[in-house]
Amino acid sequence: MATMKDIANRLGVSLSTVSKGLNGGQDISDSLRQTILDTAVEVGYINRKARKQDTRAIAVFIENMEYEEEGQFGHEIVLGFQQAAFREKWGVTILPMTHEFQKKHKYDVFMLQEKYSAGFFLGFSLDDPWMDQLADTAIPSVLLDNFIPKNPKVSSIGTDSEEGIDMAIDHLAKLGHEKIAFLNGSAGSTISNQRMLAYLNSMSKHHLPIDTNLAVYGYFVADAAKYHVPGFLDQGATAILCGNDLIASGVIQCCNDLGYNVPKDVSVIGFDDIPLAARLRPALTTIAQNRNELGQCAYYTLHAMINNVSLSKNLLRPNLILRDSTAIAKPRLTIRRSDEKDSVVNVNPELYDQFARQQLLK
Amino acid sequence: MATMKDIANRLGVSLSTVSKGLNGGQDISDSLRQTILDTAVEVGYINRKARKQDTRAIAVFIENMEYEEEGQFGHEIVLGFQQAAFREKWGVTILPMTHEFQKKHKYDVFMLQEKYSAGFFLGFSLDDPWMDQLADTAIPSVLLDNFIPKNPKVSSIGTDSEEGIDMAIDHLAKLGHEKIAFLNGSAGSTISNQRMLAYLNSMSKHHLPIDTNLAVYGYFVADAAKYHVPGFLDQGATAILCGNDLIASGVIQCCNDLGYNVPKDVSVIGFDDIPLAARLRPALTTIAQNRNELGQCAYYTLHAMINNVSLSKNLLRPNLILRDSTAIAKPRLTIRRSDEKDSVVNVNPELYDQFARQQLLK
Repeated sequence: MATMKDIANRLGVSLSTVSKGLNGGQDISDSLRQTILDTAVEVGYINRKARKQDTRAIAVFIENMEYEEEGQFGHEIVLGFQQAAFREKWGVTILPMTHEFQKKHKYDVFMLQEKYSAGFFLGFSLDDPWMDQLADTAIPSVLLDNFIPKNPKVSSIGTDSEEGIDMAIDHLAKLGHEKIAFLNGSAGSTISNQRMLAYLNSMSKHHLPIDTNLAVYGYFVADAAKYHVPGFLDQGATAILCGNDLIASGVIQCCNDLGYNVPKDVSVIGFDDIPLAARLRPALTTIAQNRNELGQCAYYTLHAMINNVSLSKNLLRPNLILRDSTAIAKPRLTIRRSDEKDSVVNVNPELYDQFARQQLLK
Repeated sequence: MATMKDIANRLGVSLSTVSKGLNGGQDISDSLRQTILDTAVEVGYINRKARKQDTRAIAVFIENMEYEEEGQFGHEIVLGFQQAAFREKWGVTILPMTHEFQKKHKYDVFMLQEKYSAGFFLGFSLDDPWMDQLADTAIPSVLLDNFIPKNPKVSSIGTDSEEGIDMAIDHLAKLGHEKIAFLNGSAGSTISNQRMLAYLNSMSKHHLPIDTNLAVYGYFVADAAKYHVPGFLDQGATAILCGNDLIASGVIQCCNDLGYNVPKDVSVIGFDDIPLAARLRPALTTIAQNRNELGQCAYYTLHAMINNVSLSKNLLRPNLILRDSTAIAKPRLTIRRSDEKDSVVNVNPELYDQFARQQLLK
């Protein structure tokens, strides 16, 4: 169990400063108080006095997502949520969740019995048993990356895909790329659909040609690359935008295997900025989701909903993190394989002519 | 100047109860405390003691919007904002704004000099001088119904048009309507574009035909109706969805003038639920924006941003208010003008995308 001393040591401040920060003492700055509160959550400090009187509690339900250790996707989201809630004196309980448990207990009944005022759902998919019940729950509830229509008690949070993808296309367009492929995640997920629409919108906004062979759904795994990258390259794509960083890692591997250099021949951009992104070679340029802020955003959304403000969708600003996987476009002639007549028909003829002319003029 | 007695009288409680509510006394319920705080804001009570120590202040900038009196569009938004801010001990100053003032003073400099921590913008359009400066302001700022891309310090709030329009189309589809026209507000406004996309999306989702002659931009005034309603009726539209309540009032008038009964011959739905909507004959079915909650949402969004959470877009749940202007569809023969062949397109995802993008790019 962490103590006030742990917080003092971590921050290099005195015990009495920590005590002031935790107990509302007057003569420290707001930003130091916030740092002390954030650190208290990070080291797992529990203020017994506060907890005893505390009848205000929020449940965080987690499924299909690692969160116990630093670096795991859920870790910083949960930490951000706890930090924001702790500042405003809410207790937070983390509850790993299974389908079986959801089948046995009704959501509203569980929340009332356990005296939780609100719930935050992480990593659920729409086929989870409780998702149906969220259509008419009376408990303020927030979901990450999923949307429940029409119930004013349920709200959705996530990162603004539209803006993130627009930043990526903007970056590529400025580097001279025109044939930009998009290898998306799984069809049918809310997130994938938003990102596909965002890609189409942004390409159109930048007056870039949309080629239906270059905008495809795959899966959220590295392995998805090998089914689509050869086709993209055959059709002259000079850049590949990916539905997440794992897909991007597969795309880089696949380009290398086929003898293409990233970024000299092909630029690659990911989505998420998981720790892997910075470790890839070349280090991956990617659209970052700030996970600590996502967690905080979930808390602030619940805070508004507990105060009877019926939020629907709440999006966080993304960041485009520029690393080494993008470069100036190097126009290539489309390579046609004799056994793939159909794909030739689908290639935008105008673009093909354009690239052919560029090559001839060299 | 309102006193504690005014609050006590308005609520029918004792002075000591009001005092407990305002000063954090322990033996009253949370909901009563909230009601007392909300009423204090409503009657214009100023707690001199609190205000004196108060160094936390937010500026609300208003342009092109009436707010002084009950019933005016801005009134409840401002009230909701003040109520939410007051609960958390923020001072709020209302500042009517002009282009001239904005040209004379830089936004960030003004905010720092006047010691405002954050700003809320109501009724501004993108050609206001300060809007350009919001692209790189360092002051947490929230805009109603406008969006500034990429600056993590600026966030947008509004009502979820997509869900509102989907509720309206859903209601009309269940009444048997298929030829549903949409008379939108002005082309080029963020809100109009969102609503056009929402209409196209929802029609497609309900497997209803999209007819490019039935989805048009007009202006946010009653007068817009007369240019489009005759064409809609000629083409057999049995329902007309409108970009706001003013347009809907013009549509009802225009239908009457042309000898069509609302709702027997034509169903009409508005957007906003301004006080006029309930007073129209027939009383208008409309997609309501809860203006008090919009104001509160603006505060909660600023609250998160002051805590360094970079929000992008935040949307409120709409309500479909059912009144008397919709009824079961009465099929009519389409009257085709000889010069308008093939205007009805089948719902086809590719065409839909193409049309949606064209509309967005207008």
